[in-house]
Amino acid sequence: MSTSLLLTLASQLIGRDTTDADPDIPDDEISNPVTDEIFSSWALFIIIVLLCMSLWTSYYLQQKKIQAVHETVISIFSGMAVGLIIRITPGHYIQDTVSFNYAYFFNVLLPPIILNSGYQLRQANFFRNIGSIMTFAFAGTFLSAIVLGIILWVWTSIGLEGIHISFVEAISVGATLSATDPVTILSIFNAYKVDPKLYTIIFGESLLNDAVCIVMFETAQKFHGEPVHITSLFKGIGIFFMTFTISLLIGSIVGVTTALILKHSHIRRYPHIESCLILLFAYGSYFFSNGCHMSGIVSLLFCGITLKHYAYYNMSRRSQIAIKYIFQLLAQLSENFIFIYLGLSLFTEVELVYKPMLIIITIIGICVSRWAAVFPLSRLINFVCRAKAGRNLTHAPITEEIPPPYQMMLFWAGLRGAVGVALAMGLESEHAHSLRATVLVVVVLTVIVFGGTTARMLEILGIRTGVIEETDSDDEFDIEASLGNYNIPLNDGQLRRQFNNRQGDASGLGPSSQSYRDSNSDNDSDVDSDSSDLPPMHRSASSLDRPGENSSFSALLSTDDHARWFKEFDEQVLKPVFLDHSPTENK
Amino acid sequence: MSTSLLLTLASQLIGRDTTDADPDIPDDEISNPVTDEIFSSWALFIIIVLLCMSLWTSYYLQQKKIQAVHETVISIFSGMAVGLIIRITPGHYIQDTVSFNYAYFFNVLLPPIILNSGYQLRQANFFRNIGSIMTFAFAGTFLSAIVLGIILWVWTSIGLEGIHISFVEAISVGATLSATDPVTILSIFNAYKVDPKLYTIIFGESLLNDAVCIVMFETAQKFHGEPVHITSLFKGIGIFFMTFTISLLIGSIVGVTTALILKHSHIRRYPHIESCLILLFAYGSYFFSNGCHMSGIVSLLFCGITLKHYAYYNMSRRSQIAIKYIFQLLAQLSENFIFIYLGLSLFTEVELVYKPMLIIITIIGICVSRWAAVFPLSRLINFVCRAKAGRNLTHAPITEEIPPPYQMMLFWAGLRGAVGVALAMGLESEHAHSLRATVLVVVVLTVIVFGGTTARMLEILGIRTGVIEETDSDDEFDIEASLGNYNIPLNDGQLRRQFNNRQGDASGLGPSSQSYRDSNSDNDSDVDSDSSDLPPMHRSASSLDRPGENSSFSALLSTDDHARWFKEFDEQVLKPVFLDHSPTENK
Repeated sequence: MSTSLLLTLASQLIGRDTTDADPDIPDDEISNPVTDEIFSSWALFIIIVLLCMSLWTSYYLQQKKIQAVHETVISIFSGMAVGLIIRITPGHYIQDTVSFNYAYFFNVLLPPIILNSGYQLRQANFFRNIGSIMTFAFAGTFLSAIVLGIILWVWTSIGLEGIHISFVEAISVGATLSATDPVTILSIFNAYKVDPKLYTIIFGESLLNDAVCIVMFETAQKFHGEPVHITSLFKGIGIFFMTFTISLLIGSIVGVTTALILKHSHIRRYPHIESCLILLFAYGSYFFSNGCHMSGIVSLLFCGITLKHYAYYNMSRRSQIAIKYIFQLLAQLSENFIFIYLGLSLFTEVELVYKPMLIIITIIGICVSRWAAVFPLSRLINFVCRAKAGRNLTHAPITEEIPPPYQMMLFWAGLRGAVGVALAMGLESEHAHSLRATVLVVVVLTVIVFGGTTARMLEILGIRTGVIEETDSDDEFDIEASLGNYNIPLNDGQLRRQFNNRQGDASGLGPSSQSYRDSNSDNDSDVDSDSSDLPPMHRSASSLDRPGENSSFSALLSTDDHARWFKEFDEQVLKPVFLDHSPTENK
Repeated sequence: MSTSLLLTLASQLIGRDTTDADPDIPDDEISNPVTDEIFSSWALFIIIVLLCMSLWTSYYLQQKKIQAVHETVISIFSGMAVGLIIRITPGHYIQDTVSFNYAYFFNVLLPPIILNSGYQLRQANFFRNIGSIMTFAFAGTFLSAIVLGIILWVWTSIGLEGIHISFVEAISVGATLSATDPVTILSIFNAYKVDPKLYTIIFGESLLNDAVCIVMFETAQKFHGEPVHITSLFKGIGIFFMTFTISLLIGSIVGVTTALILKHSHIRRYPHIESCLILLFAYGSYFFSNGCHMSGIVSLLFCGITLKHYAYYNMSRRSQIAIKYIFQLLAQLSENFIFIYLGLSLFTEVELVYKPMLIIITIIGICVSRWAAVFPLSRLINFVCRAKAGRNLTHAPITEEIPPPYQMMLFWAGLRGAVGVALAMGLESEHAHSLRATVLVVVVLTVIVFGGTTARMLEILGIRTGVIEETDSDDEFDIEASLGNYNIPLNDGQLRRQFNNRQGDASGLGPSSQSYRDSNSDNDSDVDSDSSDLPPMHRSASSLDRPGENSSFSALLSTDDHARWFKEFDEQVLKPVFLDHSPTENK
């Protein structure tokens, strides 16, 4: 993405420029491509400089361990500064080109972030907390959108600002402003190494909740202009779950298909083609899903998860590393760009109508709605946990509960992000300009206020930080990861296995197919000897999963009943089918 | 880039769509963003499917070792097929959106290819053959452009087709059609493992020659409409060399600055930021150079070379790997996309005027001009080599000569590529439509004819293939590379060194700064102990250069007098200044 995000601007810029000209005018009078080139070069150069500045600030803040300011806040402010300069500069040409583009955001900026989130997801942690995450993501977001929608609807019905919006519009705005931002809060949490449980819940919630909000928003927009009955609610819920399920299926099917293609072809011998294809498949799922009126975000998220869960183990070592780094890089650039862009939009959007009272009411509204979503649901989760603990008498019942500081942090972490702004651009309403302005201001304010104070809040609430998480050691070459794993014997075994794997792949390339066989059988026996000393559960984990997750998986198996059937099904049916080096095949 | 290339289409597409609408029309009547989103999703999905097909074909051809057809030819034909379908489909909407966009090509598609070329360049090989490469790239391209220009000018002066172009226009077209394509031929050469000497000359020539053609073209365009005197030639040559030199300097300065920033900061502790910044700096050099009316291609090429030569050794291990893979992936996707795009343009460009006779004459013309460039210059190089050999009596004099089969291959490898087409889009002439059509057809034909027959030609000429090159083992995790190096003891040393480096970096992240010190000093002593057993020249190579290149560097030093001073200056002055772990600092 990287450059793409930047570069699209140029193409867009030139696209606009050339289409402005009448096609009947002879060539010489159409804007000269060389001049366009120069102009777009400068535009792109400025964007690159802004991105560099924001990345450098981020480095500087991390290096100096400065907590008060966060890089996203810096990005927003630098975007605002540039936006202000553009605003006061005469001429509308630049101002028009840098305005927030709905399709641009959804096609260029968002996919890498979502894909990377799905791909980097710590699956063991995620599935261990799946109950809480789903509760917050579905019920919480739904509650939040409804509460905020009602507040806005009531306020506009009073009619103090001459705005009257329909109930569907109010719910649309509510959905827009219920999409919490996974970017800022998580980069803070990562820097502080917050307790993995809290991290996972907030990460999982904000990820799924983006998808939920997008689907909710689009569902609500389908009722735009129609009279609303009580049946509409059920119809809406039906559409919502259908969209969500089909999108999930598209993503998973693409992920699984990729795994199968990798398994049944020799494409891992050409890693440069392999990594391109994996990236293209993932994007394909996104655009296919969007094209079918489904949610590309949901598809991409689950495509990423499936890719990591199955396809990852069928890739060549080189593609594993390449894909991981590329996803990370693209996501990083997109994130920084989005915040710069948000800052820019505040001043460069010409069509915004700012209504101060509406903005204040909305800010109060999002706090109330977040409160209404987080606290009752937390109590519900805690109640269910205790009930389960009392019935089952398992040994670790309390881990599922959400203690009060975590609840407060969940509330605080509900800052709104670019997804909301992008959704608001698609609002269909006669008061769309006011509503968009409101959403944009509220989003920027939440990022500045909540994002800027999260670090302090962590201290005030006394939340455990500096936790050394189970390292994400799917990658022995990873600088951060390699440190933590030198002493784990299992990891050495896997290192050896992967090394042999690599040898096997490499010799398969050359003329010596004998050595290919040799190293391959060597590899198999290696895995066997590794595994045979271990109990069955560890055995499968050692040969298939990331070594750092062994403990997590065992924890998962011992505590979580409802996940067990899938785990077993996965180990015994799915993995042998989808993976290349599954335990059964190695025998 | 990857997605970018694809995604820009959407943004561009939507850009057009929204600008077509009158801004005064109320919101509801402007094309709905949601509909746009669906439309662009399908457009992008189709492009992704085309890309996947072309990559899969490439894999299949390599897997089955099919020589007759090449993937670029497949890409062009698949593009043509889709183009034909779009052409016969009613409506001009899609046709307009997929037409070849000058700025799009130069801002999105070309940079990753050039950057990757510069970065992946085998510097030892390149600088050993720098004499031949420069001769072909400068004198050869100049000759070729002039010869082709004169042929075209004479033909149009006869006036059989009612076209009369000025001499400057003829030279512009000549420059356009002198840019040889580095993509197709090199992927064939890579697959066949052709003799590195021939490979390097053709690669180096086609790389530099793109830059030369672009600068020549732009220089020629500056004289458009002016009367041409004999002084114009000198003025043109002056502008040409000034542009080339300044662009080269911009690129090198950015590369060196990056190396210095990496050296003097601790940014390698945050590899995800580091790799983003390196990518952004490289692109920054491109756009800055373009913005200054210089040649971005030249800047980017030399930025890539400088990055690899200096900055590479200051990066964290993770960034080294990430940057390499990302550049490769972006370049791969751009290449495939360009050929699909060329095929598409043949049918979807509405403004092309095909003149059959002009096309035939041009095809004859490019053969003649290539002939005129390759064979006399080869003789000149051989003559100079023999003269040098007779004077110096060095032991390996004949290696510099270009034997007749290589000359023939150089001629054959002169197929034209997308740079020419992109340049032709910038032609300013009253007959621009005919000239553009001619260039497009000629380029596609050369790719199909020359590209399709190169493999056969290698056999006919009896050129050595299957040469196991000095492996590109800057990366011990590279599947292909790792195989060849297991038995080289030096490489093990470097492996250990890099491993320690990684440890050092990693522990620098954590709280234990003691271990950072420890592992760092360990690292230093390791390098020393490695190096102390070796003669001085090998010593520097072992700690700074890729191990596989030791032999090349020694060959370079023994045979090439004019390169020696730079090599020594580089080792003794530049590398200690720019690099972090230079030999002198380690003491």
